[in-house]
Amino acid sequence: MRTTTGWRATGPTTLRRTPLERRDLRADDIAVRVDYCGVCHSDLHALRDHDRHAEAPLVPGHEFTGVVTETGPAVTAFSAGDRVAVGNIVDSCGVCAMCEAGQENFCHSFPTLTYGGTDRRDGSATLGGYSREYVVRDAFAYPLPAGLDPAAAAPLLCAGVTVWEPLRSLGVGPGSRVAVAGLGGLGHLAVKMAVALGATTTVVSRTRDKYEDARRLGAHDLIASTDAGQMAAARDTFDVVVDTVSAPHDLAPYLKLVAMDGTLSLLGYLGPVTVEAMDLLVGRKKLSSAGSAGRPATAGMLRFCADHGITADVEVLPSAQVETALDRLRRNDVRYRFVLDMSDLD
Amino acid sequence: MRTTTGWRATGPTTLRRTPLERRDLRADDIAVRVDYCGVCHSDLHALRDHDRHAEAPLVPGHEFTGVVTETGPAVTAFSAGDRVAVGNIVDSCGVCAMCEAGQENFCHSFPTLTYGGTDRRDGSATLGGYSREYVVRDAFAYPLPAGLDPAAAAPLLCAGVTVWEPLRSLGVGPGSRVAVAGLGGLGHLAVKMAVALGATTTVVSRTRDKYEDARRLGAHDLIASTDAGQMAAARDTFDVVVDTVSAPHDLAPYLKLVAMDGTLSLLGYLGPVTVEAMDLLVGRKKLSSAGSAGRPATAGMLRFCADHGITADVEVLPSAQVETALDRLRRNDVRYRFVLDMSDLD
Repeated sequence: MRTTTGWRATGPTTLRRTPLERRDLRADDIAVRVDYCGVCHSDLHALRDHDRHAEAPLVPGHEFTGVVTETGPAVTAFSAGDRVAVGNIVDSCGVCAMCEAGQENFCHSFPTLTYGGTDRRDGSATLGGYSREYVVRDAFAYPLPAGLDPAAAAPLLCAGVTVWEPLRSLGVGPGSRVAVAGLGGLGHLAVKMAVALGATTTVVSRTRDKYEDARRLGAHDLIASTDAGQMAAARDTFDVVVDTVSAPHDLAPYLKLVAMDGTLSLLGYLGPVTVEAMDLLVGRKKLSSAGSAGRPATAGMLRFCADHGITADVEVLPSAQVETALDRLRRNDVRYRFVLDMSDLD
Repeated sequence: MRTTTGWRATGPTTLRRTPLERRDLRADDIAVRVDYCGVCHSDLHALRDHDRHAEAPLVPGHEFTGVVTETGPAVTAFSAGDRVAVGNIVDSCGVCAMCEAGQENFCHSFPTLTYGGTDRRDGSATLGGYSREYVVRDAFAYPLPAGLDPAAAAPLLCAGVTVWEPLRSLGVGPGSRVAVAGLGGLGHLAVKMAVALGATTTVVSRTRDKYEDARRLGAHDLIASTDAGQMAAARDTFDVVVDTVSAPHDLAPYLKLVAMDGTLSLLGYLGPVTVEAMDLLVGRKKLSSAGSAGRPATAGMLRFCADHGITADVEVLPSAQVETALDRLRRNDVRYRFVLDMSDLD
């Protein structure tokens, strides 16, 4: 086994710096020195839901960038020194229809999660990127395109693909009208990507407070969801509404914004959702949800971001401040994504 | 005013034969002798919800066929003696974006319903097709194609367009895999239409009891929703699942049947529906709903049905047996649609 150092959960809001084991490299593994790891809302949920008496430790983190330090003998795509990025899945069965279609995220036997998952070969618990080293199958690491800042690019691997996948699969392009509800980690990347895809892009936020920020990100307008007049005026006008609000909330106001034959795509919340069938019927609207993506879409997203100079707006903190980052994320006090600098783990 | 005879609600399950007034013909009106009127699930709901102390009488019926008896001076599309069909909307604003797009069913100022609505010009309450005469604006009557039996064609105007609209707008055609959940008034027409469109079509029914019926309608198979093994084997295999079940029910089992990028379309139930966002996410599935259609789609549906010899399987009863029809419909005791023969009102 290899040893490294990382941040292990000790409670719903606490983590302790601790030595961690990583597997010895298999033929198709690479070892990655983790330089930057984004702090995702999922990490908050994982910490909250983690059974502290569980046998497997919880080490969050599933959007990180770093440098290859070592490669298994069968690895041809990477060499030591390459900059790479890893997202929220690190393996899949590889043989089911979904894997063959490049949708490893929908693998019929469930993809292996970057943390909180179970390795398909040795049954060990996967430990995430809040650590200085990660060992990953080569197929689930992506070359980090030159020109993308490695700290600001880390959030692309979860927040980025999560918003990219619906924009892409729903055909957003020049002439599309896109609304982004919620301007946070996901939302600000959705705005940048939708704008770069050529869509007329509008932010929907509780108030007008983020108007200047929205404009700076490239959005054409901002609608205050608490302003009934603005919401009514925008009714039936967006081909795609991406809803990045992470707390349970009433979908009806957002569904009303969707244009004929358009789609409301839920990105931020994964529990039960209720809509009035009539609100779907009138205007032939659709409800969908997205999160994660397959390998081809992830690689495509990174190329697109490199071509358009898109990274996240990040606040980089030393990893020792992970609890501060999580606490502030919990209070939505970040514009727009925390990234942990792992170099303090050396 | 003109006078005719029809069936007016006197309680949630009772109707009385009564004289009714119809407006004098406006320039663009036609008078229709109603020959056959289908009995729709909506009629049950309207009767149940009707306030018996309301000023406006309730006369149900919004899928009927008949013969033009008189035309207003501006009417050019119809002449006395023409066979026509009328569905669940009889007017719309005509100038909003939806009306201009031929989606009068989504008229921004709400379409005028065939019964229980309010006439846009004189403010009178609309009274439905459970009557011997109906006066309707020419634009909302459709020529009944030759070769379609007028009794069996009546249900096409509501049940028919309701299933046609999602099949058409979701692109069902040769090679599509369609599942029809619920084999009733809507479901049996969905099967016939999906088969005629070239789709491989499967009925999902509680038990195998309707297997022979499903096959006779053209379906390729039937899955029993109570058979966990059959449901599991059919997981992720249908591009479109049209759910015609009229009672509130758990959508999760039907959503599981939907294939990657496919759609679950709710047709039979219009209240609040709850799904797990995760069940939409995995497989990038969509939830939609349908009911009614615009004028172009309605006319197209009638042409398609004429080309493919599609009508409803009907049980025709004299209109005097309307309460029997409603009672049996309430108990799902009909294969597959009741149609009232209005000639007993003469």
